[in-house]
Amino acid sequence: MIRKQALPIDLKNSVIRDSFWSPKQQLILDTVIDYQEKVLNDQIPGAEKSHAVANFRIAAGLEEGEFYGMVFQDTDVAKWLEGVAYSLTIRPDPDLEKRADAVIEIIARAQQPDGYLNTYFTIKEPEHKYQNLLECHELYCAGHMMEAAVAYYEATGKDVLLKVMENMADNIAEHIGPGKIEGVPGHPEVEIGLMRMYHTTGKEKYRDMAQYFIDRRGEDPSWFQKERQQRDWEHYPMNPADTKYNQSYAPVRQQKTAEGHAVRAVYLFTAMADLASSTGDESLLLACETLWENIVQKRMYVTGSIGSTVEGEAFTIDYDLPNDTAYAETCAAIGMVFFSKQMLDITLDGKYADIIELELYNGILSGMQLDGQRFFYVNPLEVNPGVSGELYGYRHVLPQRPGWYACACCPTNTVRLITSLGKYAFSENPQTIFANLFIGGEFDLDKARIQVESQYPWQGDITYRIQPKAETAFSIALRIPHFAKNAVVSVNGEVQQADREKGYVYLLRKWKEDDLVRVTFEMPVRRIYANPAVRANAGRVALMRGPLVYCMEGTDNPGLLQSLHLPRDSRFVIHPAEDGVLKGNLILTAQGLQNVCGPELYSDEPPQQKPVTLTAIPYYTWGNRGLNQMLVWIPE
Amino acid sequence: MIRKQALPIDLKNSVIRDSFWSPKQQLILDTVIDYQEKVLNDQIPGAEKSHAVANFRIAAGLEEGEFYGMVFQDTDVAKWLEGVAYSLTIRPDPDLEKRADAVIEIIARAQQPDGYLNTYFTIKEPEHKYQNLLECHELYCAGHMMEAAVAYYEATGKDVLLKVMENMADNIAEHIGPGKIEGVPGHPEVEIGLMRMYHTTGKEKYRDMAQYFIDRRGEDPSWFQKERQQRDWEHYPMNPADTKYNQSYAPVRQQKTAEGHAVRAVYLFTAMADLASSTGDESLLLACETLWENIVQKRMYVTGSIGSTVEGEAFTIDYDLPNDTAYAETCAAIGMVFFSKQMLDITLDGKYADIIELELYNGILSGMQLDGQRFFYVNPLEVNPGVSGELYGYRHVLPQRPGWYACACCPTNTVRLITSLGKYAFSENPQTIFANLFIGGEFDLDKARIQVESQYPWQGDITYRIQPKAETAFSIALRIPHFAKNAVVSVNGEVQQADREKGYVYLLRKWKEDDLVRVTFEMPVRRIYANPAVRANAGRVALMRGPLVYCMEGTDNPGLLQSLHLPRDSRFVIHPAEDGVLKGNLILTAQGLQNVCGPELYSDEPPQQKPVTLTAIPYYTWGNRGLNQMLVWIPE
Repeated sequence: MIRKQALPIDLKNSVIRDSFWSPKQQLILDTVIDYQEKVLNDQIPGAEKSHAVANFRIAAGLEEGEFYGMVFQDTDVAKWLEGVAYSLTIRPDPDLEKRADAVIEIIARAQQPDGYLNTYFTIKEPEHKYQNLLECHELYCAGHMMEAAVAYYEATGKDVLLKVMENMADNIAEHIGPGKIEGVPGHPEVEIGLMRMYHTTGKEKYRDMAQYFIDRRGEDPSWFQKERQQRDWEHYPMNPADTKYNQSYAPVRQQKTAEGHAVRAVYLFTAMADLASSTGDESLLLACETLWENIVQKRMYVTGSIGSTVEGEAFTIDYDLPNDTAYAETCAAIGMVFFSKQMLDITLDGKYADIIELELYNGILSGMQLDGQRFFYVNPLEVNPGVSGELYGYRHVLPQRPGWYACACCPTNTVRLITSLGKYAFSENPQTIFANLFIGGEFDLDKARIQVESQYPWQGDITYRIQPKAETAFSIALRIPHFAKNAVVSVNGEVQQADREKGYVYLLRKWKEDDLVRVTFEMPVRRIYANPAVRANAGRVALMRGPLVYCMEGTDNPGLLQSLHLPRDSRFVIHPAEDGVLKGNLILTAQGLQNVCGPELYSDEPPQQKPVTLTAIPYYTWGNRGLNQMLVWIPE
Repeated sequence: MIRKQALPIDLKNSVIRDSFWSPKQQLILDTVIDYQEKVLNDQIPGAEKSHAVANFRIAAGLEEGEFYGMVFQDTDVAKWLEGVAYSLTIRPDPDLEKRADAVIEIIARAQQPDGYLNTYFTIKEPEHKYQNLLECHELYCAGHMMEAAVAYYEATGKDVLLKVMENMADNIAEHIGPGKIEGVPGHPEVEIGLMRMYHTTGKEKYRDMAQYFIDRRGEDPSWFQKERQQRDWEHYPMNPADTKYNQSYAPVRQQKTAEGHAVRAVYLFTAMADLASSTGDESLLLACETLWENIVQKRMYVTGSIGSTVEGEAFTIDYDLPNDTAYAETCAAIGMVFFSKQMLDITLDGKYADIIELELYNGILSGMQLDGQRFFYVNPLEVNPGVSGELYGYRHVLPQRPGWYACACCPTNTVRLITSLGKYAFSENPQTIFANLFIGGEFDLDKARIQVESQYPWQGDITYRIQPKAETAFSIALRIPHFAKNAVVSVNGEVQQADREKGYVYLLRKWKEDDLVRVTFEMPVRRIYANPAVRANAGRVALMRGPLVYCMEGTDNPGLLQSLHLPRDSRFVIHPAEDGVLKGNLILTAQGLQNVCGPELYSDEPPQQKPVTLTAIPYYTWGNRGLNQMLVWIPE
């Protein structure tokens, strides 16, 4: 029977000390969480008004006023709290914890006597509760607050918010379910929250609720239309017949392709995988595998990003991956990490860890300015000033990161992911410790304490110093990325001939104090070719080194980026960025050619080719040096 | 002083007998005009309701009913009448002429006692006349009816419609002008109509009105906003502050780039050029030259089509020429013929004739199904089933020609152009006969009758048999297309060493009966390269032979079109299409390569290249063999 074969490490038992990730975590701890707190409390002059905490205060009767913001404004507070919880496991901060406690106190007071919690409906439309699951995000808000509650409880041992959300879960169960409102949320997320509540409290009723929402979705594809007919109001002008948008076009076990709103899709699939492994549901797991493969093999950008169109922030069709009109929402890439992590824990297959790594170093990290002050919602693979962000069809593709958004899902989502990175680094089961990602630090597992030294993603050289707690033999399984074809694994200097099993090298032995495991592999620049079915990438090549996708920016290169070609035999030189905001990154240069021609629009003469030096930088660092062109897929 | 240096031939004095064009004219005479007449009279079951003639009958009091259709529905009747007029010069058809007379009779009765003519306002909103020049197309409708009136008068000598439109012009002048409504039409066209009325009647008041509209445009860029403020209604939700859309962002003489709605722009520029040459206005002509160069050198597809975005059916920015989301409206390409013809007559520069030819054989002809039954509004340079016409951003790009449109501008526009082709073939001034296009037939000019034999566009071999009427010497100027670099011109077999002057070879002599002029030139397949500033065409090549652009269709080629490459040294084989709808066309084949790879979405391995035969067909013939891929710009 299927089940999770490994469980993640407790965040409190991990200390990340990594030359790549630690500065990013510190940036979030030092700057971003504080900035977001101020935004949520409307204390940043000039920033888009949030009112998210004020909404809770008004709902709690602590303040007079009107609700302001999106119908899902509450989730900004929830995701901030979740990020705070993880951040407290990285660095205790009694003052921050006190402020978070105070926010939780307000949330608790905003909860209605019957357990209901949602500031929009409490303040504005109390008569409309649970009448518009299609558009109104009540369950979505609840799901995020459940995640925050679990995270805060696990980080601090404080269960105020957890109790609040248990009450809210009971309130949901009173209204929705067989024989009651037989519907599902328009935006999946509560399923994830309920599963986390189940794992933390052990109460099966939460898993049963998640199961209801998952089994019920798509069982009656016309349900949202019926819901619409039963009420005389709408919140957005959303088409209830667009059942792909919210993955309700078919029962989830019959879905073969990832459809609709990309964030909704991967949040749903995350919960499906979690549920499948908790109930031993093989048909549900099979659906998850099919959907994951469809995304990764047909609908994912090389950066790991997903969502090909702004219309519905959605998947389109297989191999439709336009670079300059990509949606590629940061939150969707984050959702792919959640989904892939569930699949990794169930299958122990390194292909899922490969995708987690791809998302982390590229499609997610690109969402945040290097200074932590600004964020992308959309992560294109090509921008062109004058076109991107300006012309029809390109307006969603901003060429520079803006500050806070009215819909601020991505910044808070990024914070909660990067502060919980430790969860992804290691997992464990009674037989084996799994090293999933090459992240430096100290990790205190059940069977051993492990100290990791890593220069990743810049060098393929990682050492693990083992302090076993168990006297018996156990395995350490090291994930070897798919690209590290000639990886060498040694223990105390002795090369190991262990085979890879689904992307992991298993080292079984009776470990001794200070045993030193080392993994080394070459990280040459790799030329990546897209399947010819991808129209946008015909005749083009992308560059990767290790897990990092590279891109060209106008500021480093001569002329227009589309006029540059990278001949197939060009060699790459890898060197450190010398100064400026890119310092600390390795950049690539290579001999290339620039097409040069006269002023004619069309000519019988091919353009002349002038030798030039091409420069590529890590994709996640683009957009940090002012407005300019950016291109991932380079004409070859 | 600038003026027109040559005037077009009278259509009644031209008989086209051309293996390429005559069948198309016959198709229109035999089928299209009749079909359109039935549509306008709502006699085609299943076709989109037109009601255009019924609107006139209702306005005339001949029938009860409501107005139906677009606010510019009247122009469908106008353009049909104009096409009928030209068709009567090709082949007399007393029955058709009688039916057209009857329609004109209805139009005359629909005219109000004060001269006002517009069925929408007469029937529906008589209190709103001339209050909404921004949105309501009253002057646009008048302009088209003026063109029809002039054409019908010139073809038949009947002036009923001309008198109607003279009265309408007077009505316009009563309401609009200095000290009255000081505005301009949102959609230029009346300027063309007024200039044609001026040329035909010799009455300067029509030219003066055209001048007022041209000089006034953009003089006060906020005028449309003021107009909006003065009325309490709108017809469309059109933004009066979007002054680029209707070319009112600046006085026309200060406009340097072609902006806004492409059809509006080129209709305006056509009238500007006509006016400039009629008044000797050098600053206005300079503006026309600047705008024409901006289009041709920075904003035109290789097919001659213009308009890069569906939003506003508009120009965007220099070098922004996406192939798969092109707007490239048939009417805009037709407008480019009108504009270029004015410029040709003024400058005698063959570059304008080159563009006329490019438009005719490509961006315009592609608008019509080979059987004359269906039409494109949008003429993309790439279509992909499953994407084109379906996904967001691509919905306007239909992958197959539909029947009649609710907005039926393009089919009727195509008819009026192709039936008046003779106007473009020759022009004349007292010294010189200009042979502008290689169209076979008999042309009765002032100084000579000329019989043209042409296998164009398939062969570069054209003969002109001259029957001089004048005893004195005169020139025959033969346009040599820009691509015919080694053209040989002979008279009675004797090769002439005449130089080209702005694209024409001038043969000055005392012509004798049956003198035979012959032009021959090679027409190899040409590889066309776009300026590297055009992002969409990086690393790609287009194929032309003579004036024809070629394209690949899925049905003739192996695999997905974007997986095919055409190596730079591949030779082309030119051969006749053997059967089916393409019979009569020359098609191209060449050795190419197909990228073949496994099922992976991304791979470190370059795709394998398999030798394949590539086939290209004339662009204007695409979409005649069912739904399939099409691509103009081929990876090289």
